[in-house]
Amino acid sequence: MEGRRPRRYGSCVLGATGVVGQRLVQMLGSHPWFDLTEVAASERSSGKTYAEAVCWHLDTPIPESARGLVVKGLDPSLDCDFVFSALDSSVAGAAEEDFARAGYPVVSNTRNHRMDPDVPLLIPEVNAAHLDAIPRQQKNRGYNTGFIVTNPNCSTAGLVLVLKPLADAFGLEKIFVVTLQAISGAGYPGVPALDIQSNVVPFISGEEEKMETEPQKLLGKWDGARFVDAGIGISAHCNRVPVVDGHLECVSVGLKKIASLDEVREALRNFEVGAELASLPTALKNPVVVRDEENRPQPRRDANVGNGIRECPLLDVKLTLLSHNLVRGAAGAALLNAELLAARGFLKPRVTPSESQLAEPVSR
Amino acid sequence: MEGRRPRRYGSCVLGATGVVGQRLVQMLGSHPWFDLTEVAASERSSGKTYAEAVCWHLDTPIPESARGLVVKGLDPSLDCDFVFSALDSSVAGAAEEDFARAGYPVVSNTRNHRMDPDVPLLIPEVNAAHLDAIPRQQKNRGYNTGFIVTNPNCSTAGLVLVLKPLADAFGLEKIFVVTLQAISGAGYPGVPALDIQSNVVPFISGEEEKMETEPQKLLGKWDGARFVDAGIGISAHCNRVPVVDGHLECVSVGLKKIASLDEVREALRNFEVGAELASLPTALKNPVVVRDEENRPQPRRDANVGNGIRECPLLDVKLTLLSHNLVRGAAGAALLNAELLAARGFLKPRVTPSESQLAEPVSR
Amino acid sequence: MEGRRPRRYGSCVLGATGVVGQRLVQMLGSHPWFDLTEVAASERSSGKTYAEAVCWHLDTPIPESARGLVVKGLDPSLDCDFVFSALDSSVAGAAEEDFARAGYPVVSNTRNHRMDPDVPLLIPEVNAAHLDAIPRQQKNRGYNTGFIVTNPNCSTAGLVLVLKPLADAFGLEKIFVVTLQAISGAGYPGVPALDIQSNVVPFISGEEEKMETEPQKLLGKWDGARFVDAGIGISAHCNRVPVVDGHLECVSVGLKKIASLDEVREALRNFEVGAELASLPTALKNPVVVRDEENRPQPRRDANVGNGIRECPLLDVKLTLLSHNLVRGAAGAALLNAELLAARGFLKPRVTPSESQLAEPVSR
Amino acid sequence: MEGRRPRRYGSCVLGATGVVGQRLVQMLGSHPWFDLTEVAASERSSGKTYAEAVCWHLDTPIPESARGLVVKGLDPSLDCDFVFSALDSSVAGAAEEDFARAGYPVVSNTRNHRMDPDVPLLIPEVNAAHLDAIPRQQKNRGYNTGFIVTNPNCSTAGLVLVLKPLADAFGLEKIFVVTLQAISGAGYPGVPALDIQSNVVPFISGEEEKMETEPQKLLGKWDGARFVDAGIGISAHCNRVPVVDGHLECVSVGLKKIASLDEVREALRNFEVGAELASLPTALKNPVVVRDEENRPQPRRDANVGNGIRECPLLDVKLTLLSHNLVRGAAGAALLNAELLAARGFLKPRVTPSESQLAEPVSR
Repeated sequence: MEGRRPRRYGSCVLGATGVVGQRLVQMLGSHPWFDLTEVAASERSSGKTYAEAVCWHLDTPIPESARGLVVKGLDPSLDCDFVFSALDSSVAGAAEEDFARAGYPVVSNTRNHRMDPDVPLLIPEVNAAHLDAIPRQQKNRGYNTGFIVTNPNCSTAGLVLVLKPLADAFGLEKIFVVTLQAISGAGYPGVPALDIQSNVVPFISGEEEKMETEPQKLLGKWDGARFVDAGIGISAHCNRVPVVDGHLECVSVGLKKIASLDEVREALRNFEVGAELASLPTALKNPVVVRDEENRPQPRRDANVGNGIRECPLLDVKLTLLSHNLVRGAAGAALLNAELLAARGFLKPRVTPSESQLAEPVSR
Repeated sequence: MEGRRPRRYGSCVLGATGVVGQRLVQMLGSHPWFDLTEVAASERSSGKTYAEAVCWHLDTPIPESARGLVVKGLDPSLDCDFVFSALDSSVAGAAEEDFARAGYPVVSNTRNHRMDPDVPLLIPEVNAAHLDAIPRQQKNRGYNTGFIVTNPNCSTAGLVLVLKPLADAFGLEKIFVVTLQAISGAGYPGVPALDIQSNVVPFISGEEEKMETEPQKLLGKWDGARFVDAGIGISAHCNRVPVVDGHLECVSVGLKKIASLDEVREALRNFEVGAELASLPTALKNPVVVRDEENRPQPRRDANVGNGIRECPLLDVKLTLLSHNLVRGAAGAALLNAELLAARGFLKPRVTPSESQLAEPVSR
Repeated sequence: MEGRRPRRYGSCVLGATGVVGQRLVQMLGSHPWFDLTEVAASERSSGKTYAEAVCWHLDTPIPESARGLVVKGLDPSLDCDFVFSALDSSVAGAAEEDFARAGYPVVSNTRNHRMDPDVPLLIPEVNAAHLDAIPRQQKNRGYNTGFIVTNPNCSTAGLVLVLKPLADAFGLEKIFVVTLQAISGAGYPGVPALDIQSNVVPFISGEEEKMETEPQKLLGKWDGARFVDAGIGISAHCNRVPVVDGHLECVSVGLKKIASLDEVREALRNFEVGAELASLPTALKNPVVVRDEENRPQPRRDANVGNGIRECPLLDVKLTLLSHNLVRGAAGAALLNAELLAARGFLKPRVTPSESQLAEPVSR
Repeated sequence: MEGRRPRRYGSCVLGATGVVGQRLVQMLGSHPWFDLTEVAASERSSGKTYAEAVCWHLDTPIPESARGLVVKGLDPSLDCDFVFSALDSSVAGAAEEDFARAGYPVVSNTRNHRMDPDVPLLIPEVNAAHLDAIPRQQKNRGYNTGFIVTNPNCSTAGLVLVLKPLADAFGLEKIFVVTLQAISGAGYPGVPALDIQSNVVPFISGEEEKMETEPQKLLGKWDGARFVDAGIGISAHCNRVPVVDGHLECVSVGLKKIASLDEVREALRNFEVGAELASLPTALKNPVVVRDEENRPQPRRDANVGNGIRECPLLDVKLTLLSHNLVRGAAGAALLNAELLAARGFLKPRVTPSESQLAEPVSR
């Protein structure tokens, strides 16, 4: 509502020259709530503008608003209301803490703080209530207005979004998942063509561990002091396949409550977010799409999550799900998290000069 | 041994113009025990030679011995000691029975009789003892010297070969398997490039059913009257991926007996076939290769079965296995089966004219 | 203009179940001028509806307006103002003549009549004046209101569109062209994955001949009685590459008039169609896009025509052009041709029952 | 002949950890004439063995003879009879000169000295006579026993080998060539999968220049003082395609002498090297294979050079040629050059201690 959001928020992308950073810069080029007011990077760019410093490789041009921004270092004294972190994990841990301590809300896509006991690992449609941990995090760490919120790994993001309605309706006991992940998930230059051309690489470093732990936190609870794991049995095999975009996942699910395939199908099909979430700029009312054709979803042909549901001889349900790793994961996930934070009042818009005159007449 | 195999066996390929048939013809072009003496096909070729009738697409030329053979129909009156069946399943069921009834051993790659209660579904390294069912089959069906022996689906073949040493050492309780299958497994023309280019098709018609039932028979027992299922819980998801040759399978295995990863690794590494099998022309002494690198095996880079073994959070062991779908499955599987049948005396070499004179002097 | 086109045109797609036919049906589902009122096919569909008869494989659903249409045979007695022909070339020749003779304008994508001496081979931006041949065609062949207009092969279409501004500005002497053509140009199922996976097929049957002859007619003239070839020397090599959509062509051009690279670049960049063409629903004001990056255009990344221009040591100019084979060629080409025919008054809208009452009061 | 080559040659690979260097190390693991006695690299390896320093990615294991060699720097004091240079071009220029000056024959795959007026650019089957330039090079540069010999770029190598018999038989006037080059030609990690997956990149930096100049020198003459260009008109377009190995080239050739297609075909088919070359370990008697099928050669299916010859409307002959970029180019090309140098006496085997005792008894 216009009345409730009279001002825009200034944002900075930390790690703006990397592949996730570029996509954030792209998405912020035309965002209804957020302006890109700063870009920063860990390496020395010595006063170069973003257009000079970046090796841009997205399909659309660099947004005009970003071209001329001077690339800053990781010093937490930037002109913005909050920061996105798309830093390399080798530097992200300390840098994100520095910014939070200096008062900036940090919306992070990196893995460094995802499993911290007081940092929300957030998918708005799944566990918005985990934002309740922010005050405790600020108290624990002595942060004032700053804090850290993270989003999960891109293959976890697609999985948990589909598991959520099943967890709500039937409870989850066990999950087997085998991923077939797209090359764009590895960034740029990422996977050498010689490794993946007409091939499958049956291993992605650290990925199986992430998929076996992150869902526990996402589907678990904040009990006021700490996150309690969901206690689901999870086994993951991760593969890289020669596909451009879209992580496909073959999943077998064991439910706590007996359910027919039709009930499972309906639970997925009827999954709908509430009014608050639906009003976020990049959110979808029905984030899960169920396909009835047995040979869908396919990465090259199908855009969003979906599945082909059938009975599992060992557990209860088999399904194939597909999620766009760049839209539901990485940059898109961080952006949706920031939108939820803004909607809930965790981000404070900057006071503009003219407004400050109105707001503080006494100070003259 | 020379002394025990003084004569060669004449063979016919039924369905010789199809993709599996062509590969059988190719392999029989230089086989130490078997000659290709006839080729047959279901469609009318009206007296054409094999070279005229076939649309050959293998990389080596048509074997000289096959070029001039006249393509016969499916009439069971061919000049050979046994037949390979690579027929389309729409005609294979009846044709294979006709040939068996007419006295021909039938070594079949088709799915029609795989699950018949008196037909061995055979992988020599796994269940050679199932050949004991042949006399019962002959009695049941009124066959004289003829019989039917089948090999499993190509994705089952790779899986069960790797499961066999684990079944022997630890017992099997549950199997989760997700396949990433190569395009050559679908024959020629097979998968349209428009369907699989830079894509995954998460469904192969009938494949999951085969993978969930065939291993039960392969790892089960012949009790003298019928095959008893292994009683393993099996769940399979099957995918087609843009890879030329080699089916990759991500497997989680639940064992009956507690075993460490090292014990599992050793059981696989030490898997060795006996002297009889090792002496078959196309058999390997150690049919399972264990790779220690976590990012192997890969279809384009690795030739035979192998795996990367690690713990499974839900069951006991996770492993990735790779098997060449054309060497361990389809044509190669049928050929190895025929070799075992020959070694065990189930195939009878033809009596040549001059030999018959020597053998039957009284008849003069 | 509303005032000039008060009525819509009813169209039929001949060969509506094939791959080009499907795309025409798709495009006609929401066309501002044309309705799809009939679908026809050469094979017997015995009263089936289009939704029943077609094996639809496009990404969007079958248009509602097409689903329930009964698939007719190739009898020229259909309820429509003109027909699109996407028939197989084995039947297209005679069928298109039958429809033209029966009074239907035929807008054909097939190769059968492309080089007929009285049939326009049409790219609206290139040789709209060739429509002058229609009256002569009707006279030659004894057609009344019917006639045949064709569009070129998809790889020719992209080439000639880029050559046109160069021909106008500098004259063309010689053309060397090597194509790298996408798999979607071969229809469905089209190219088997086994043939093109990680491979190039350096031959497309009949394609080089088409590329060496069709541009002569397209860039030539109608002299009132016959088409006069452009007299350009053309040499073409055609390759199929593992790309989904978009034909890339490496071209060297010999010009009649000396021109600098900048002049060539400007001629391409400034190529702009006139007001009449620009007003056609699917036409572009600037159909040629020039890219300055030396590693563009690329099929997967770039949508429309474009090029990277540099000097040719033998001829005058080297350029790489890319054209979407389904948008500029095949269905899209036929549709644009029909739009031009409508704009020029060659198509006559049907008289609806109520209109006929108004129009012919005297006949009561 | 045994009698003429009683001793082996010790070799060193400069740049042994890179992709071409690794392949040289692999090939030298079992070479009949050459031993690998040293490995060197530009970056600091501080005393590591080759097995420790290299990130090996070839399919066969590191040769045993190479594993334990300590990686040396680029100091020209190595224990070997000659060096292969597979250095990065940023350091190759000076390093190769240093080694030549220090007395080592340098067999280089880098581009730095290819076009030097006194350095042979060598393909043994094409221009072995260019070795006559070595004494002049030594005199010009003040080298004693050392010298530099280079091989061409991998796409040039395939082209010129096929052009050679045509140049001899008919003379060459003009060449148009468009390449479709494999990803392995770009080394490792080389081309990012995101750039080439289901795509074509119509540009390879510097490649067109190399293809337009190197053939002039290769097919030209050494006049006793300098290399005289062949004076052929050459135009090249270079593309990267998603193929693993094998550069395909579409070529149109203008001949000086009128020739029928059959004469061209016979000239290629009959191309045969002399006895000296045929006796080199890695040489082929008939290095050009002519395929008659119009859809061959194909990179994934065909191993060596070949072509599909047909008439060119502009020049005289069109042909498609395929050459394995790693066997005919890069490492394989350098190795064949070294073999020719050895056969011609340009390499001097080291005198081993025991041999020197026998050979020089007087010196005591």
